[in-house]
Amino acid sequence: MPHILDAIFKPKTIAVIGASTKRGSLGHKIIHNLISFGFEGIIFPVNQKSPYVYSLKSYKSVLDIPEPIDLAIILVPKEYVLEVVDECGQKGVKGIIVISAGFREIGGEGIKREKKLVEKIRQYHMRMIGPNCMGVFNTAPDVRLSATFAPAEPLPGNIAFISQSGALGAVVLELARHLQLGLSMFASMGNKADISGNDLLEYYYTDPNTRVMLMYLENLGNPRRFFQICRRITKEKPVIVVKAGKTRAGALAAASHTGALADSEVAIDAMFHQAGVLRVASIEEMFTLAMAFAHQPLPKGDRVAVLSNAGGPAILATDALIAQGLTVAEFSRETQRRLREMLPEEASVNNPVDMIATADQESYGAALEILLQDKNVDSVLVIFVTPVLVKSIDVAYKIAGVISKFPNKTVVTCLMGHEGVLSGVEELEKHKIPVYRFPETAVRALAAMKEYRQFQQKKKGQIRTFEVQKETVKQILLKARQEGRSMLSSDEVRDVLKAYGFQLAECCTVHNAEGAIAFARQLNRPVVMKLLSKDITHKSDVGGVKVDLRTEAEIREAWREILANVKMRFPSAQIDGFVVQEMVKEGKETVLGMSYDAKCGPVIMFGLGGIYVEVLRDVSFRIAPLTDVDALEMINSLRNSPLLKGVRGEKPVNIGFIIENLQRLSQLSSDFEMIKELDINPFIVSEKPEQCKIVDARIVIA
Amino acid sequence: MPHILDAIFKPKTIAVIGASTKRGSLGHKIIHNLISFGFEGIIFPVNQKSPYVYSLKSYKSVLDIPEPIDLAIILVPKEYVLEVVDECGQKGVKGIIVISAGFREIGGEGIKREKKLVEKIRQYHMRMIGPNCMGVFNTAPDVRLSATFAPAEPLPGNIAFISQSGALGAVVLELARHLQLGLSMFASMGNKADISGNDLLEYYYTDPNTRVMLMYLENLGNPRRFFQICRRITKEKPVIVVKAGKTRAGALAAASHTGALADSEVAIDAMFHQAGVLRVASIEEMFTLAMAFAHQPLPKGDRVAVLSNAGGPAILATDALIAQGLTVAEFSRETQRRLREMLPEEASVNNPVDMIATADQESYGAALEILLQDKNVDSVLVIFVTPVLVKSIDVAYKIAGVISKFPNKTVVTCLMGHEGVLSGVEELEKHKIPVYRFPETAVRALAAMKEYRQFQQKKKGQIRTFEVQKETVKQILLKARQEGRSMLSSDEVRDVLKAYGFQLAECCTVHNAEGAIAFARQLNRPVVMKLLSKDITHKSDVGGVKVDLRTEAEIREAWREILANVKMRFPSAQIDGFVVQEMVKEGKETVLGMSYDAKCGPVIMFGLGGIYVEVLRDVSFRIAPLTDVDALEMINSLRNSPLLKGVRGEKPVNIGFIIENLQRLSQLSSDFEMIKELDINPFIVSEKPEQCKIVDARIVIA
Repeated sequence: MPHILDAIFKPKTIAVIGASTKRGSLGHKIIHNLISFGFEGIIFPVNQKSPYVYSLKSYKSVLDIPEPIDLAIILVPKEYVLEVVDECGQKGVKGIIVISAGFREIGGEGIKREKKLVEKIRQYHMRMIGPNCMGVFNTAPDVRLSATFAPAEPLPGNIAFISQSGALGAVVLELARHLQLGLSMFASMGNKADISGNDLLEYYYTDPNTRVMLMYLENLGNPRRFFQICRRITKEKPVIVVKAGKTRAGALAAASHTGALADSEVAIDAMFHQAGVLRVASIEEMFTLAMAFAHQPLPKGDRVAVLSNAGGPAILATDALIAQGLTVAEFSRETQRRLREMLPEEASVNNPVDMIATADQESYGAALEILLQDKNVDSVLVIFVTPVLVKSIDVAYKIAGVISKFPNKTVVTCLMGHEGVLSGVEELEKHKIPVYRFPETAVRALAAMKEYRQFQQKKKGQIRTFEVQKETVKQILLKARQEGRSMLSSDEVRDVLKAYGFQLAECCTVHNAEGAIAFARQLNRPVVMKLLSKDITHKSDVGGVKVDLRTEAEIREAWREILANVKMRFPSAQIDGFVVQEMVKEGKETVLGMSYDAKCGPVIMFGLGGIYVEVLRDVSFRIAPLTDVDALEMINSLRNSPLLKGVRGEKPVNIGFIIENLQRLSQLSSDFEMIKELDINPFIVSEKPEQCKIVDARIVIA
Repeated sequence: MPHILDAIFKPKTIAVIGASTKRGSLGHKIIHNLISFGFEGIIFPVNQKSPYVYSLKSYKSVLDIPEPIDLAIILVPKEYVLEVVDECGQKGVKGIIVISAGFREIGGEGIKREKKLVEKIRQYHMRMIGPNCMGVFNTAPDVRLSATFAPAEPLPGNIAFISQSGALGAVVLELARHLQLGLSMFASMGNKADISGNDLLEYYYTDPNTRVMLMYLENLGNPRRFFQICRRITKEKPVIVVKAGKTRAGALAAASHTGALADSEVAIDAMFHQAGVLRVASIEEMFTLAMAFAHQPLPKGDRVAVLSNAGGPAILATDALIAQGLTVAEFSRETQRRLREMLPEEASVNNPVDMIATADQESYGAALEILLQDKNVDSVLVIFVTPVLVKSIDVAYKIAGVISKFPNKTVVTCLMGHEGVLSGVEELEKHKIPVYRFPETAVRALAAMKEYRQFQQKKKGQIRTFEVQKETVKQILLKARQEGRSMLSSDEVRDVLKAYGFQLAECCTVHNAEGAIAFARQLNRPVVMKLLSKDITHKSDVGGVKVDLRTEAEIREAWREILANVKMRFPSAQIDGFVVQEMVKEGKETVLGMSYDAKCGPVIMFGLGGIYVEVLRDVSFRIAPLTDVDALEMINSLRNSPLLKGVRGEKPVNIGFIIENLQRLSQLSSDFEMIKELDINPFIVSEKPEQCKIVDARIVIA
């Protein structure tokens, strides 16, 4: 069954509405691109004035075209777009690309116009790319659709690209062409009024010509769907994303540019990580990765051999390897012996191999072959520096031949210099061998491949579902909402958490010392006493907390002291009573939190308690639902996580139990999206699960 | 008075010994380069066979040349070098460049040959670059010396470059030429047998044509001299360094490549920072910085305006600005009004300014002028994306004109794309305007300029010299050395530290509980009791430490418990007694340390105590002597330094007193280089200086 987007990416007939006879205009350029790329189908220009455009018979309206139309490309001025879309609908057109600008991005009337446009698209059951976009292409040999006004002709290949910026899309196409990087499909999304990045990603994924997918995004329209799609596809085809608007200032600029809502970066970053998206910092880095992923197999391991004709770049490469988490391969004796035999005395046959400046194409070919045969080598970085007597094109040709004999090993190359290596660079590009201009960049590509391989090998993880009392929680939340309260009372918080299987320190609210004593006696354990006052947030700062109270006398004394402290430091505060709580003595303070993100849903937080979260901000985030693997990563990614593993002879805390509690929190947050914020602080953890207790928590609802 | 290196960089007469008639040989290429660059002086080829080389009369020996010779360039095979150098000495040649290889870098005989070579150089009072180098150049118009065999002709400019790798030197020259970056001087140092990077740096600094200095280094021969030189010159002329061999594997590769000793990276990194050296991670980044520093004034502040014809790149630039610590300028109302007037409705007149795709050269010129006139703007990043209708060369020409009117404001540019912008890139390069291909790179240049400006504005700092009892320490150290001990006794450690004005917790070694009680009574404060045993390193792990002992009974009980603990957990340990020490109750544990680096001298360490140093490795390093500014930076650069500033209502510790103690440690370490290691752990610090005390310390001597 054909995919619904086939009408746009694999049309048989196209109407270009707003085709123009005026050279230099977009309406002329797009017809030129369609024809000169050799579209395998029929093009019908639509133009009010001229009877022909670019030697093709032209029609006054799409309705006049004598054949059914799969795809209409619309470039008419904004005022005429709606009318033209109506005609397309009547004609039975299935796919629309609106190049014309003047919609949501200009605000005011543009927003209304876009709304009407989408209504019409839905009404006629069409699908649309744009408006305000630069078009699409598909280089598949049976399609050859180049429906953009970009200056550069597409080069067929296995990389698919999605751009939320027309200008950056054009830049990427131009650079890809320059780097001889072939693309399978391309789409400039414009305002994403109908077809989104998610739709395109799903579609690209099914394309047999596509091996790698690149995206330039300024915001995510539906991050939760993006998350689901990526979780499904990224292990098979890598998705490399440049996400702009990372900082608040950048997000504001993006918002003013596209009229889109700013994303929560914490949530987006967590989500990208969980979904295996390779996030890169710049367009430049996107190319660095794309070049390697498109044309080389993933290395089976991290052991890299460096082969060079100069020491300096080899040292820089070695530094970069280590810094980026790769390993300098240790060669077998056989490899060393064979290298020694063929290389001059001054050469180094350890890794990095420095063949010295006299190395010619024959040395490169032979040495590379030896290295690729070594089973201690997973990938090779070949470095070649502007030579005096050797031609870079000869070396490139030779190593391309060797590489073709080892389709399962990874090779990247680095040719340094300018005039001296240009012909070699071109030759390598022609053979689809990744070629970089600086050793650090080549290593970055290898490091990204390692990262991706680790993601592929990562256990999928389990989303555990616990037996809970969901209905109890529902009633509590609904009651609070009905009463117009956004903050749950501390008893309600306890009931909600208990219903989801959390362990809480025993506790009781009292209004006199006798009550505290009675509770402590019943508990038969040391207690903590805390002031209860709506006016005071940080109780310990005003001397409102006393710990480890063991006797009646101590409780009475603490009571007096707290009241005296508060009277002195905060005389106007209203005192609502005292909380008496079981003293949780042993263990580490941790913090579990959740904040509901309007676009990404529940974002779960974990950190060490006290100063680690308050001052040092050592926390990690993931979006719900959490697998056990996600939860473990949250714990391990804290800078100070060694503190949980037992330092200075302490026993380690129970990591498994923290994971369980993070997953319970994930379940609670996912079950009740009306919970906006939930903070468990502190959750005191120690070795034995039964000793891990929540001491305090708060819940805010919508 | 002429500088001693003038013979090499500003010779009037040159002998090329090993000049060759063979095209393609180095001896031919170097004559070609000398002549074709238009050397302002006389060249004398020396060649055994041919009566002329490259149309110049040739001589059989340097001794036959009828005029005095300033500089001899030697390219003869290694076996003849020493003999030729002898002749040069006899001739009275002042400067030598040995291009020939076959010295220390090949080990064995090469090492001996290099030793003899240096002896001869010293004997004849000559100075030498090399051996195993690719030469030097000086583009000063009254010199025009191009004494290398590099393929690219030098382009005059204000950047001086020093390379420890010939191959990378050639790469850098080729790339500089391609980027139209002009150089003042260049030297490939080869084996640095005589003239070092330090010599060259000092020499370049005095060159009026040089504004920026670049270095590619694989090791530092004399880092302490490098430190002194840089401290003197970097505030005036920026020094940008790529230091390879950063990682252990990289350093090993560098060592096998140059036969040089590996550097301690911790010490080098600290030293670069203290000396204001701009360390970059790659050759690519070195160019990024050089382009801006060579041709633009330093911005007066951090407020950057972004001017673009497309939203996407402007957002990426904004993200990068924030991420790299710069500020998005807020325009004056006047600026916004003027931009609004000249730009189309769809354009954004806030920062970043998005003029949209229709912007032509006139828009760029006018908008840039408005931005440069705004006193809220310190620098402007101009972005231009492959246009459809506008020519990049026209835009480049226009903005170059505007920039020339504002010599005190900083402008960097970013032209994205390939074919569409090449002519614009060339035009900007021609006008010496920094032009980058990606927004993040342009921002990196601005961030480096900020870093450098901050360094320039940083207070110089004081190296305090305290009144100390140096002679006392000398006697202690010499006694220990005479007795063949490398570890000082704990009494010696206390005496050394006291002699340099450190405050130690009172302490006493006892052999029975009565002794402990007597000491505690005399002290009249709570005490700590610690087991003394050579067999047990981590005393608290075996229950060998008891704290806060207040009464006789408690001391007796602690005594018994410790003995029982040790008997149970480490029955074979020999017990040497007990240390009874004043209990230092309040305050934070910190650690002060020093380790003597063979090349950089004393390296001072500071960290928070306990888990922060042991597990989290949160420590900072600087090399001695420390200024107060260095010491303060050490404290502030800890990740967990907020803990010292008073969190959760605690009082801050006395930072000034920590600085004083770090400077005392610096003085002690500098006074006695025989101290190899010194650890003060813990140094307990609190608000009042008199309460800050050293609890334990150890000293190792050479």
